[in-house]
Amino acid sequence: MDFSSKILENAVNEVSRLPGIGKRTALRLVLHLLKQPKENTAYLSEALLHLRNDVKNCEKCFNISDTDLCDICNNVKRNPEIVCVVEDIRDVMAIEGTSQFNGLYHVLGGKISPIEGIGPQNLQIESLVKKIAEGEIKELIFALSSTMEGDTTNFYIYKQIEKFEIITSTIARGIAVGDELEFADEVTLGRSIVNRIPFTQSLRA
Amino acid sequence: MDFSSKILENAVNEVSRLPGIGKRTALRLVLHLLKQPKENTAYLSEALLHLRNDVKNCEKCFNISDTDLCDICNNVKRNPEIVCVVEDIRDVMAIEGTSQFNGLYHVLGGKISPIEGIGPQNLQIESLVKKIAEGEIKELIFALSSTMEGDTTNFYIYKQIEKFEIITSTIARGIAVGDELEFADEVTLGRSIVNRIPFTQSLRA
Ligand SMILES: [Zn+2]
Ligand SMILES: [Zn+2]
Repeated sequence: MDFSSKILENAVNEVSRLPGIGKRTALRLVLHLLKQPKENTAYLSEALLHLRNDVKNCEKCFNISDTDLCDICNNVKRNPEIVCVVEDIRDVMAIEGTSQFNGLYHVLGGKISPIEGIGPQNLQIESLVKKIAEGEIKELIFALSSTMEGDTTNFYIYKQIEKFEIITSTIARGIAVGDELEFADEVTLGRSIVNRIPFTQSLRA
Repeated sequence: MDFSSKILENAVNEVSRLPGIGKRTALRLVLHLLKQPKENTAYLSEALLHLRNDVKNCEKCFNISDTDLCDICNNVKRNPEIVCVVEDIRDVMAIEGTSQFNGLYHVLGGKISPIEGIGPQNLQIESLVKKIAEGEIKELIFALSSTMEGDTTNFYIYKQIEKFEIITSTIARGIAVGDELEFADEVTLGRSIVNRIPFTQSLRA
């Protein structure tokens, strides 16, 4: 691309670093901003900086939060004895959208993937095992996506905690194998939480 | 969407104001930023603010420029007697990419579209007529996209300037009718400039 402006070129380059945004799309987006009032760009820039600099991970569940403890962990009406293990904050949002779950979460921050160089030490697994060792949790629900990496991660965690006396379950596979959790419709996802099965049973399936 | 963080929700809302970016895509983009070093978000925000606040329109051709006069208008090796009329800076970039044009540009900033409420007064038409009245321009090449709005705009401008003694031409329609200029391949677009035809001839086609 031949840019007539270094400032424009720089903006297009920065925007096109975002995943799935090519140079052409980036150019379309920044030219759109140029046609809008200056305030719009100021709000966008400020919102991104505020997010990156000020957002926290909940100290207990590692969900994204504005405070040290997230609203879910802070809610006394929720049952801290049941913890749902998810990959990502988007999965928390998807499950909350079903209104079928009243326990707490534990956000791993991904799943074990040797290809992407993600090992157990890159995820919030040690902190989960520690929480279970402390004895407050009675049931752990695995709600990772049903891919090979998800199954590997479930199994790795299971081996770390099988010595503790807790129930382990996994959400019912009403969701097609290989599908990402966040794209499931709310009814299917809600049902898969209600019909969760013992984790050991899922290994035989 | 159930957000666990107002800061996150605000960032997603701002990003999803961009054209073609839905809430889900916006969430994916901001979560990506959260996984990257803080500097990346700082560079992105700064680049957008810098663009919106500091970029100019060239005083002569209305191309996007870092200086009062753009690099093309400032280039003494280019022929100021031939001016190519385009809708948008992306069309300047596309034509520059062909290396087939050595004149100057005039960027209208859009095309006449009653449906979108864009009239001649919203475009750089008066400034074009003024430039032609001053007598430096010998040939005007219409390079708008060959849509109804493009043809309307060409014709509107033509009626304003037919009293002046200049050649008017239009780029050869090697490009499929209805296609946007910026998506044409460079060879086709370059040829359509070399094989341009008198504008009055294009009216009969
Ligand atoms: Zn929490
Ligand atoms: Zn210029």
